[in-house]
Parts: sequence; structure tokens; C-alpha cells
Amino acid sequence: MKRTLAEIANLINGKLCGDYDENLVITGATGIALAGPSEITFAVDPHLEEAIACNAAAVIIQEDVNGFSKTCIKVKNPREAFNILLNIFKPELKVEKVISSKAHIGKNVKIGENVAIMDFAYIDDNAIIGDNVEIYPNVYIGQYASVDENTILHSGVSVREYCKVGKNVIIHDNTVIGADGFGFITKDGKHTKVPQVGNVVIEDDVEIGCNAGIDRATTGSTVIGKGTKVDNLVHIGHNCVLGENCLVVAQTGLAGSTIVGHNVTFAGQVGSKGHIKVGSNSVMAARTGLIADVPENSFYAGFPARPHQEWLRIKANESRLPDMMKKLKLMEKRLKALEEKNN
Amino acid sequence: MKRTLAEIANLINGKLCGDYDENLVITGATGIALAGPSEITFAVDPHLEEAIACNAAAVIIQEDVNGFSKTCIKVKNPREAFNILLNIFKPELKVEKVISSKAHIGKNVKIGENVAIMDFAYIDDNAIIGDNVEIYPNVYIGQYASVDENTILHSGVSVREYCKVGKNVIIHDNTVIGADGFGFITKDGKHTKVPQVGNVVIEDDVEIGCNAGIDRATTGSTVIGKGTKVDNLVHIGHNCVLGENCLVVAQTGLAGSTIVGHNVTFAGQVGSKGHIKVGSNSVMAARTGLIADVPENSFYAGFPARPHQEWLRIKANESRLPDMMKKLKLMEKRLKALEEKNN
Amino acid sequence: MKRTLAEIANLINGKLCGDYDENLVITGATGIALAGPSEITFAVDPHLEEAIACNAAAVIIQEDVNGFSKTCIKVKNPREAFNILLNIFKPELKVEKVISSKAHIGKNVKIGENVAIMDFAYIDDNAIIGDNVEIYPNVYIGQYASVDENTILHSGVSVREYCKVGKNVIIHDNTVIGADGFGFITKDGKHTKVPQVGNVVIEDDVEIGCNAGIDRATTGSTVIGKGTKVDNLVHIGHNCVLGENCLVVAQTGLAGSTIVGHNVTFAGQVGSKGHIKVGSNSVMAARTGLIADVPENSFYAGFPARPHQEWLRIKANESRLPDMMKKLKLMEKRLKALEEKNN
Repeated sequence: MKRTLAEIANLINGKLCGDYDENLVITGATGIALAGPSEITFAVDPHLEEAIACNAAAVIIQEDVNGFSKTCIKVKNPREAFNILLNIFKPELKVEKVISSKAHIGKNVKIGENVAIMDFAYIDDNAIIGDNVEIYPNVYIGQYASVDENTILHSGVSVREYCKVGKNVIIHDNTVIGADGFGFITKDGKHTKVPQVGNVVIEDDVEIGCNAGIDRATTGSTVIGKGTKVDNLVHIGHNCVLGENCLVVAQTGLAGSTIVGHNVTFAGQVGSKGHIKVGSNSVMAARTGLIADVPENSFYAGFPARPHQEWLRIKANESRLPDMMKKLKLMEKRLKALEEKNN
Repeated sequence: MKRTLAEIANLINGKLCGDYDENLVITGATGIALAGPSEITFAVDPHLEEAIACNAAAVIIQEDVNGFSKTCIKVKNPREAFNILLNIFKPELKVEKVISSKAHIGKNVKIGENVAIMDFAYIDDNAIIGDNVEIYPNVYIGQYASVDENTILHSGVSVREYCKVGKNVIIHDNTVIGADGFGFITKDGKHTKVPQVGNVVIEDDVEIGCNAGIDRATTGSTVIGKGTKVDNLVHIGHNCVLGENCLVVAQTGLAGSTIVGHNVTFAGQVGSKGHIKVGSNSVMAARTGLIADVPENSFYAGFPARPHQEWLRIKANESRLPDMMKKLKLMEKRLKALEEKNN
Repeated sequence: MKRTLAEIANLINGKLCGDYDENLVITGATGIALAGPSEITFAVDPHLEEAIACNAAAVIIQEDVNGFSKTCIKVKNPREAFNILLNIFKPELKVEKVISSKAHIGKNVKIGENVAIMDFAYIDDNAIIGDNVEIYPNVYIGQYASVDENTILHSGVSVREYCKVGKNVIIHDNTVIGADGFGFITKDGKHTKVPQVGNVVIEDDVEIGCNAGIDRATTGSTVIGKGTKVDNLVHIGHNCVLGENCLVVAQTGLAGSTIVGHNVTFAGQVGSKGHIKVGSNSVMAARTGLIADVPENSFYAGFPARPHQEWLRIKANESRLPDMMKKLKLMEKRLKALEEKNN
């Protein structure tokens, strides 16, 4: 993909400034340090200085930046503009929309139009695959599972029996949708399996990272809401329900029946006790450990979780603990001395 | 699967109460909110009110509940009774007990009776597969590894060379048994691999979630004891030995040579330092960080781990830290004032 | 593999001591508890007593140990010597260096000499595979990806498009190299994917455990430096750069753009905020939570991370918190009494 500088400025609705040749051919978009003389990059504070010295053909900057002594394109939002270019210049991968004769297609499987199913993928009996779906090698789709249109399943993904994956979903390599929930009844010290007969429903526009695990419900459905994005190595227990447009950052683990509203962020390595509710528009800072319900619009941190400001105050005092201890001892001595004087 | 209401009451050794047609045909068992008029559900406190209003044909409740104004079946243990029904009504999956010609069967492999080995599974040379085993697609069984009877290995599972998996074991998708332990000798800043020549032994009746990793021993065996259940994304280091009937909840990580007794519970996201012992019948609360031995029958929490009650007291005081700090400052002022008065 | 006792002493540059037959045939090397009469083991303090009573033919011990009343081989470094023997006695696995006709080899793929590519491995178009590489079943190598000589990729590993894996690398089962970084632009509550058009570069002599995930860079490269060892279930975010000879222990997660020097150790379950720098030769204790840069040669612990000594002091005082609180209350009473007396 190649575009002239003028075409690029036009594409991102920006204004070319400085010393430039508008017919210069641009071949890529990349980071400041990597960009060569036929590539474009972007910069925001505090990277403007670095960008002035870089090799890029031009730098996308914010429209209100002054004194930028290098060819640039001024736009309202440099990040968004750069994003558009990344999409244009991203390396083209070829995915042939064919169903490989070396894939396994079970009995009574329904497959839409324009689908890629690569070698060694296994589509089990009674599964349904929508239009334009891409299924990479070594993917397993269980019996009666369904994958809706435009969805991409990377290598080694498993979508177990009865699970439903929506439209425009991306699931990265080796993630497992619908393994059994961790449910046992313990009697006389022995653990007997509770059959996990529910499923998982992944709604439209969801993305899930690699090596994550989202367990099927005991009964009913574990749900990942529309537009929610889940990072690598996340664990979502049985019967969790996540609302729309949540962000679940890497290595977070939500125990069974955690019920989450919309637009909730779990920063990395968060954990939740099961059977609690997290209100919409809330943010759990990294490593938050939830043991009780969280109201809407909250910003929580710590373990046990508490409002972030409160956590900050505790952490600040925590580092003064050794001093506090010393002071306490000293004060006791002084108090004792006074008491003796007063007797 | 269909059963009449009377048959169901009989099956779970319960007593039908309220207004009912004992010949009503029941087609499923599911949660309160989902159950329709030909399905059965169960309820315990505090869900009894909700259950009275639900659409289920009947609700399984405890025998000592009074005033439940809806058709119900009274039993000693509603959860156990419901579990029996889940097992009866669970959706039937068909697994053909055949060895696919599209699987790889290595040299000198021994395979029992009535075994399913699906396409793209790879059984390496000298492996042994017992009777009634089900091996899903893309599973890898290493050289000299063995899988005993009635065991189910879901898609993408890897059982590496020399490892032994017992009877009636279930391993969920993409879990790895027997990757090399993390062992290096560091000399002049360089890390040289310590050969990991031991194996993993998974005893009978174990279940392991998806995307977990259980490392082979340096020498000897890493052992998961009979009846122990391991959740998703758990890490078990080389030479760990877990006793019988333990529960290891999601994202827990046990460092090398952690030796665990019987009936021990590790709630989610627990971590242990290597080379420590955890006594039988102990419970590690979620996120406990073990750095030393734990006696039998302990209930531990926190990092570093301590008795749960102690941890609760510390956490309670932690939230009072900012107040404490203020009070301390104030008291110092008052003390100083008194001292001046006394001089 | 069999060696006489004399040959073994010679191999590890040690001195046979005690009562021995130098022609005794040794068939294996294993741990103290497991070693039989034709095997060899090693012991260092505090395991010497146990080793004297064990069944091994001989015990490798440090040259300065006196009064060891059993056949032994004295060496400078017992651990290193034992390591040499583990390498000699380790069970031989046979890997046929052939390209299976049941693997998928894409268009324009380049493959070196003496390569093993097993059934159901999928090498996508334009990939490059170096000499002596071993690729196990169900591995996926993406378009334009490369794997350099002597590298071993275990079953289910995914090396995504454009990623580069160096020489003498070992990657364990189901690990994913180059899934998309977790990058989104949020506008009106909706998350739009930032194309992840960079790659991952794994340098020479790296080893990575099972079920780990190392994300591709947004632009440029995520880098794992030469000789660095990464354990199971580790998450490395987009654009992280790790130096040489680092150790990243299990379940650690480094958020995007964490920049790490050389010889850095992350003990288990560590987490880092993105966009921070960790100086060379530093050690992060288990569970450290990094939220800011770490200087070189640091030993950090806790969350938020601080120098390890400081953390120890805080933790020590933490357990005295309940007592402190009681003392504070008591002192306040005494103070009040004094104040009244002085009025």
C-alpha cells in the first residue's frame, strides 16, 4: 500500500505544515524511533522533541502545537489519525476463503458463504458457521456450537459444545470457550462433579486474547457482553455475566457468578470472589481483590477492595508504619515519665 | 430425556407437595430464572421467594421449609437432588468410539478397547491408551506416556513424554501436562538448563481445567493425588506433590517442590514459594501468599500467609491507619503541652 | 546409557571416596529418596544425613565435607556435577528429522536441513524454518514468520505472522507468540481496535514455558532478549523489551511497553504497570507490583513496589497493628487522666 503525503493529509483530515513535497510517496506508518524517510509517525507530549529529530517523512501532531520544526500534519486527535493510517498500511495477510479438505467437517454442520476453514480444524457435528468466518488450523468447534458472521478464531481456539460466538468477534490463539465450570459437591471429603450443562454466549464485537478460559455455566449461560474486550490469560468462571464494552485486562480472574455491568474496567491481575455484583462504569485498579458488591461509577483498588482514594491513603500511611511504631514507643516512655512525676 | 414429576420425586427420594399432576412430563432441569413450565429447578435460602414466583413446573426445596406456595419436591439436600437431575437431563453428546484414520498413531502404541481418538490427535511412539478413553482433536500424547481407562482429554491437551494419567480423569482443553520444570543453573550471569528428566503422575479421578500447566519433575515425579480437582490457568511447578481430594482454584501457582497434604483447598490466585509443606485439611483463602510451612487443619490468608483471623484483624486495623496517624500526632501535641507544664 | 562408577567420577572431575567397586555399572541419576543401588544421587546441606542412609550406589558431595560414611564422589560443585549426569542419563526420545506429508507447508515456505515437522503442524505461506528445527504436532507458524536453527517448538505452539524466533530456542506447549496487543481507542464508551502491526522477536537461547502469551507490538517489536528464560502462564504485553539473561517466573504479567534491562529476575506472580523501566541486575520478589521505574541493582518487593528491606519492615509492623491500636487507646486514656490531674 502506497499513498502520497497529500493523500494522507486528506485521509486524516489534517493540514500539511512545514517544508514538504506533497507528492512524496509514503510506504508505512510506525513508531518514532523506527520510522524511515518514506514512513509517517505521530507524536504527542512529551515525545515532540524526539519526533523533531526523527527520520520520518512527516509527523502527525495536534493542531495546537506551535514551533514544530519538521514536516508535520496537524490534526485534532493524532492518535486516532495514526490509527487510521495503521489500518491502511498494515501488512496484508492472505486468507483464502476455502474449506480445506484436510479440515474435519462433522455431520449436519451448516457453513455460510465465503468461509475459511484451514487444515486440521475440527468442526464437530451439528455446529453452525456463519458467513465470512475465518477458522485457523487446530481450532475445535464442539457439537451444536455456533460461530456467527465475520468472526475470526485463531489457531488452537476451542469453542466447546453448545457455546455461541457472535458476529465480528476475534479470539486469539489457544483460548478456550466453554470448558466445564469448577463445580463440585463435597461429601465425606470427596468431590463429586456437578454437571455443567449450560453454555457460554460471546456477544458481537468482542475480542478475547490468547490462552484465556471462559467457563460454561452450570445451567443457563456465561455471557460476555457486546463490545467487551478480554486480554490474555484471563479466567472467567461459570455463570459470570459481563455487560457491554467492558475491558478485562490480562490475568484477571472472575470467580463464578460475578455479575458485571456495562463499561467496567478490570485492570490487570484483578480477582473477584464469586456471586458479587460490579456496577456499570466502574474501574477496578490493577490487582484489586473484590469480596463484595461494587456500586456503579466506582473507582476501587486494594484487597479487600475499597475506594481508590482510601486505598492510596492507607498505602501512604503503610510506609510510615515503622516510624509510627518508634514514635509510639517513645511517647509511651515520655508518658510514663510524666505519670511518675505526677504521682 | 423425559420423566414424569412422580418419577423425578422418586429418583431424588423426595415428597411431592402442593398442587400437582404427577404425570406431568418434565424435559429439563435448570436455574430459577430460566426454568420453563416443563422444567424443574431448585431453591434454598435466600432464593425461596424468587422460586415461588418462577415458571418451573416444580421446585426442589429442603424438607423443613414451610409455607412454600408452589408445587415442590421436598428433599433432605436440594443441591444434591438437583445434581442428580442435571446428570439425567444433561444434553447428550455423541462420541463415536473409533480411532480416526486421520489421527497419528505412532510405533508400538498400545490402545485398549472402546477408545475414541479423533482426527488430528497425535499419539507418539510407545504410548499406552487404556479402555474407554476419549481423546479429542489436536491432543498430543508424548513418547512412553500413558493414559488409563475412562479418561477424557479435551482438544489441544498435551501429555508429554513419560507422563502418566490415571483412570476417570478429565483434562480440559489446551492444558499441558509435563512441560519442563523451570530449572536453571546460573553461572557468570548465564542460565544453563537443568535437564528435566522426571515426569508427571496424575492419579485417578482427577479433573483439571483448561490452559493449566503442570510441570514434569527434575527427577522423580510431580504428583496430583487421587480425586484432586484443579481449575483453569493453574501453574504447578516441578516436583510438587499434591495429596488426595484437594481443590486448587483458578490462577493459583505452586512453585517447585511444594508438598501438599490431603483435602487442602487453595482458593483462587494463591501463590506458594517452593520447598514448603502444606498440612492436610488446610484452607488457603484467595490470594494467600505462602512463604513457609502451614500446619494441618489451618485456615490461612494474606501475604505473607498467616492465620485467617489474624489477617482479618490486621486488615480491619489497616483501614483505620489514617485515623491512627492523626490521633498519634494529636496525642504528641498534648503530651508536649503537658511536659511543658510539668517543667 | 550405562557408565561405571570410575567413568562417572572422571566425567565430573571428582574423587571417589569410601568403600566402592569402581567397575560397578550405574544406570541412572535421580533424587535421594528415589535412587536405587545402581543409581547415583547428590546431596548438599541439610540433606547429607538423609543421603548417608539412602540406597544410591554413590552420592555426589562437596569436596570439603568430612565424615560422610557412604560411597561418595567429592566435587567442587555437586549441583553442576549432578546436572552433567542428568544430561547423560536422560531418557532418549526419538525425533525423526522428516517433514511429515500430513503437515501443511504453505506457499513459498523455506525450510532448512535436518528439520522435523510433525503431522498436523501448519506452516503458513512465506514462513522460514532454519536447520535442525523441531516442530511438534499442531504447531502454527504464521505468514512471514521465521524460526531459526536448532529451535524446538512443542505441540500447539503458535508463532503468529511476521514474528521471529531465534536460534536454540525452546518453546513449550500451547504458548502463543504474537497475538495482538491489547490496544483500543475508546470513544463514546465504545472500544475500537488499534491495529497491532508490529511483531515479536525472540532472540537466541531463550526458553519459554507452556501456555504463556507474548503479544506483538503495535508498531516495531516486542523483544525477549538473548538467554532470557520465561516460565509458564506468563503474560508479556505489546512493545515490552526484555534484555538478556532475565528470569521471568510463572504467572508474572508485564503490561505494555515495560522496558527491562539485563539479568533481571521477576519471581512468580509479579505484575508491572506499562511504560516503566526496570534497571539491569534487579530482582523483583514474588508478587511485586511495579508502578514506577526501578533503578539498576535493586531488590524490590510489595505492592506498590519498594526496596525489599523496607517492605520487610512494613510487613513486620503490620502484624503488630492490632496491638498498636490497643496501646494507642490505652495511652490516650492515660494522657487524658494526666491532663485532668494537671488542670
